[in-house]
Amino acid sequence: MSKSPFLQLHEADTVVVARDFAPQGSVWTSPDGKLTVTAKERIELGHKMAIVPLPKGTTLLKFGQPIGFSTIDIAPGDWVHSHNLDMMSLHRDFEFGTAIHEPPAPATPRTFMGYRRQDGRAATRNYVAIVSTVNCSATSANYIVDAFDEALLAEFPNIDGVIALNHKSGCSFRYTGPDHQMLARTLGGFARHPNIGAYIILGLGCETGQASFLAEEYDLVTLDNAGSKSNRPLIMNIQDLGGVKKTVQQGIAALKDLLPAANQVQRMPIPISELILGTNCGGSDGSSGVTANPALGVASDLLVAHGGTSALAETTEIYGGEHLLTRRAVSREVGEKLIERIRWWEEYAAKFGAKIDNNPSVGNKKGGLTTIFEKSLGAISKAGTAPLRAVYEYSEPMTEKGFVIMDTPGFDPASVTGLVAGGANIVIFTTGRGSCFGCKPVPSIKVSTNTPIYDRMIDDMDLNAGTILDGEKTVEEVGLEIFEEMIAVASGKKTKSELQGIGDEEFCPWMPGPIF
Amino acid sequence: MSKSPFLQLHEADTVVVARDFAPQGSVWTSPDGKLTVTAKERIELGHKMAIVPLPKGTTLLKFGQPIGFSTIDIAPGDWVHSHNLDMMSLHRDFEFGTAIHEPPAPATPRTFMGYRRQDGRAATRNYVAIVSTVNCSATSANYIVDAFDEALLAEFPNIDGVIALNHKSGCSFRYTGPDHQMLARTLGGFARHPNIGAYIILGLGCETGQASFLAEEYDLVTLDNAGSKSNRPLIMNIQDLGGVKKTVQQGIAALKDLLPAANQVQRMPIPISELILGTNCGGSDGSSGVTANPALGVASDLLVAHGGTSALAETTEIYGGEHLLTRRAVSREVGEKLIERIRWWEEYAAKFGAKIDNNPSVGNKKGGLTTIFEKSLGAISKAGTAPLRAVYEYSEPMTEKGFVIMDTPGFDPASVTGLVAGGANIVIFTTGRGSCFGCKPVPSIKVSTNTPIYDRMIDDMDLNAGTILDGEKTVEEVGLEIFEEMIAVASGKKTKSELQGIGDEEFCPWMPGPIF
Ligand SMILES: [Ca+2]
Ligand SMILES: [Ca+2]
Ligand SMILES: [Ca+2]
Ligand SMILES: [Ca+2]
Ligand SMILES: [Ca+2]
Repeated sequence: MSKSPFLQLHEADTVVVARDFAPQGSVWTSPDGKLTVTAKERIELGHKMAIVPLPKGTTLLKFGQPIGFSTIDIAPGDWVHSHNLDMMSLHRDFEFGTAIHEPPAPATPRTFMGYRRQDGRAATRNYVAIVSTVNCSATSANYIVDAFDEALLAEFPNIDGVIALNHKSGCSFRYTGPDHQMLARTLGGFARHPNIGAYIILGLGCETGQASFLAEEYDLVTLDNAGSKSNRPLIMNIQDLGGVKKTVQQGIAALKDLLPAANQVQRMPIPISELILGTNCGGSDGSSGVTANPALGVASDLLVAHGGTSALAETTEIYGGEHLLTRRAVSREVGEKLIERIRWWEEYAAKFGAKIDNNPSVGNKKGGLTTIFEKSLGAISKAGTAPLRAVYEYSEPMTEKGFVIMDTPGFDPASVTGLVAGGANIVIFTTGRGSCFGCKPVPSIKVSTNTPIYDRMIDDMDLNAGTILDGEKTVEEVGLEIFEEMIAVASGKKTKSELQGIGDEEFCPWMPGPIF
Repeated sequence: MSKSPFLQLHEADTVVVARDFAPQGSVWTSPDGKLTVTAKERIELGHKMAIVPLPKGTTLLKFGQPIGFSTIDIAPGDWVHSHNLDMMSLHRDFEFGTAIHEPPAPATPRTFMGYRRQDGRAATRNYVAIVSTVNCSATSANYIVDAFDEALLAEFPNIDGVIALNHKSGCSFRYTGPDHQMLARTLGGFARHPNIGAYIILGLGCETGQASFLAEEYDLVTLDNAGSKSNRPLIMNIQDLGGVKKTVQQGIAALKDLLPAANQVQRMPIPISELILGTNCGGSDGSSGVTANPALGVASDLLVAHGGTSALAETTEIYGGEHLLTRRAVSREVGEKLIERIRWWEEYAAKFGAKIDNNPSVGNKKGGLTTIFEKSLGAISKAGTAPLRAVYEYSEPMTEKGFVIMDTPGFDPASVTGLVAGGANIVIFTTGRGSCFGCKPVPSIKVSTNTPIYDRMIDDMDLNAGTILDGEKTVEEVGLEIFEEMIAVASGKKTKSELQGIGDEEFCPWMPGPIF
């Protein structure tokens, strides 16, 4: 355990980062003890020091990924910043598949204790849900949920809860237009989610986003535990049933009927290759890209090595790093899908006379971030360094194994809602300023980037990556800690947000518009 | 009480509408008995019959407003539709102030029993609120509200309830950009609403939509009953307080402190000129423009005659009728503000490659709607025929008396949220298909357009305008019924939605984007 003021964020890196003010003469030693580098000048907090000779034109690696080229010869111990590092041609063209690095295969396969649905899907939780088609049915859905208090659910110990998937939309968009499709894809994704053991669909009746459209277009079936796939799910419309009061009575009865079957599940060993990890960060700070994000990347690479899926999202926060991601794409097609999504965002912003600007600000530069790659990689590093196997639109089912991207906004609840709709059955969320996020029906592990926020928000934080800054643990060590916590939580260990019951309000389908 | 199959929607109308299939020879007699007209041919349900001679080129009036010109000479008893009615030049240019009709002054002034706030504002209800700045604080806000159960509130009989104003946004928009301003204006409007006796603002801490920006930009003050206007409202941020658990504990304590003062109110007579009526319709059907909407228009004109305010909204549903509304504008400036808003919607739709199309559909035409004016007037008729005194943007404070327009989408919860933010202290909502809308902290009276939906949704419907279709009451009579119900509800009579506790989920700030 190094007490050096320097951190190596990835074993392939050719620069290290100062986790503290590092006076001239500060020393960094590689984990294997073979390499020792001494700072030739004072290196400020967050800034970089070269650890190997980097002759002019050499690609520099941070997060295990290129952040630019040396513009002059750089020696070990030199400070690295705008005076000797530039993006140069990296930003000029898109390459596809030129930087494929498979994470090493694991020594032993791992399993988690999950639920196996009759149709083969792997679940980490077992919820019962009411899917609201429209804001007009949200209150009725809440009233139905209210009836399922602890006393009633005590009879059904294998059910984690009854949730209402309420939102602020469902009408006044174009029938089968983009918002309609996106909302239906999201609601459909939740309905089909392995963590939902049973559900009903509740609408008003006259909304544009009809329950019947949802059920037919997204091929929804009753997910009863007996595995019968022949039936459409139960659809209830308030206008047909005669108003709120009668709907609530009938809704309670209908859900009660589903509980005994939904309770008939038990956890069993399932390969972690069936975990679909959704990563996110919210309330980022200067430490996010140095501690929690790269550590989560280590966990992500481990999951991918075990055959699992790890999804990066928040397109607006990875913006500027797309040239690096295309180099990791397993095919031109996958890479071009990402570019197409980036273009979509540029055009969307332009519609409103806005711009997506992820360039390092003056403050970022002072903090040691030299290039837009480096800033974007701070977010991208959450999902490790594995080859990019697929790019999905918002809420699309994520069917590929390995590292994938889903296009979502950076707004946390909207981003995670899309990831869960796409099948994520575990979420890991990094935060520097502090977050109290939860996302039913999927557990969300929160990792703090610094120790003060971990201590202050101890009721909400699951893990502390601030130990890296404190010099107590390496990125690798915290990465392993996150990996083990992920398996424990997937197996039933409650996260802090679950212990507090958080995750209903956070259902937040993204709808870019227009609304009429 | 006429059992004629024909209805006159407004006393100035030159056509009547068939409320049922009217065989040739069917008779309509004017209320004063002076005019009797016999149908010269069969008139279908929803279609129009002329009641006076309409020589070629005459303006035809329905809803007391022009719907087009006769293209040939029309005689009393003639069926009026596309073969003899056209919009012609009405649609070609905008006129300003050429059709000003002041409703007649009332015989006696009227009052309602309301609450008078220390600063003079008039309230119809007395709620305590938590204003969430961002989705991230929504769950904590709910947990705080949960502590204020019936038992606790029983000590404070003058408080109607404690509500959480939660939403799905508050971050990932441009700082001081349009979405930020619109959300802040909406949250600020609720915070300042006379029906909110006391409130706190609750945020996460790192959101773009900062609580401090909200409080400063919208000049929020502690609305304690002692009338002290010198203090900023209490702002709580979860990150500062150390997470959900500690925030909830402190939030409960803070709100409890506000209850005794908030309870110190009593109802007193207040002129109805201080009512601000927000009108809306949702789940419209073929009867909406024949029964509930024109009847609500009668009530609206009565309120305006008494010096009160009546606000029309749902711009996309009045689209196509703007040329008629500018003729009612009290100034060119007011009329041009409306046109500017119409252009905004056209450009907004075009950004997404969409169009706002409010033209009568084939089904509308079969149902008897000849022109786009007639269709738009079906919605516009909710707000009567009084001169248009102001046009407001979404959630803007409505300070003018008389008939005004607020630009909102047609989506009901978003539309009413804007109206309430703008100061509406009573809402009347017409529905044909059935609605279970409610909107805390303001009572919302629901009027059905037909008797079957009134009977079927009796737990949700307050009034039945279907009696007009049934031949039991005139539009005028139902209009008076609505007017009296409005005063009774403003004075404390609970609406059906209030009796059921509806109106939390329906808080739905409109945000046209972009979100990042
Ligand atoms: Ca982030
Ligand atoms: Ca984010
Ligand atoms: Ca809610
Ligand atoms: Ca409407
Ligand atoms: Ca509407």
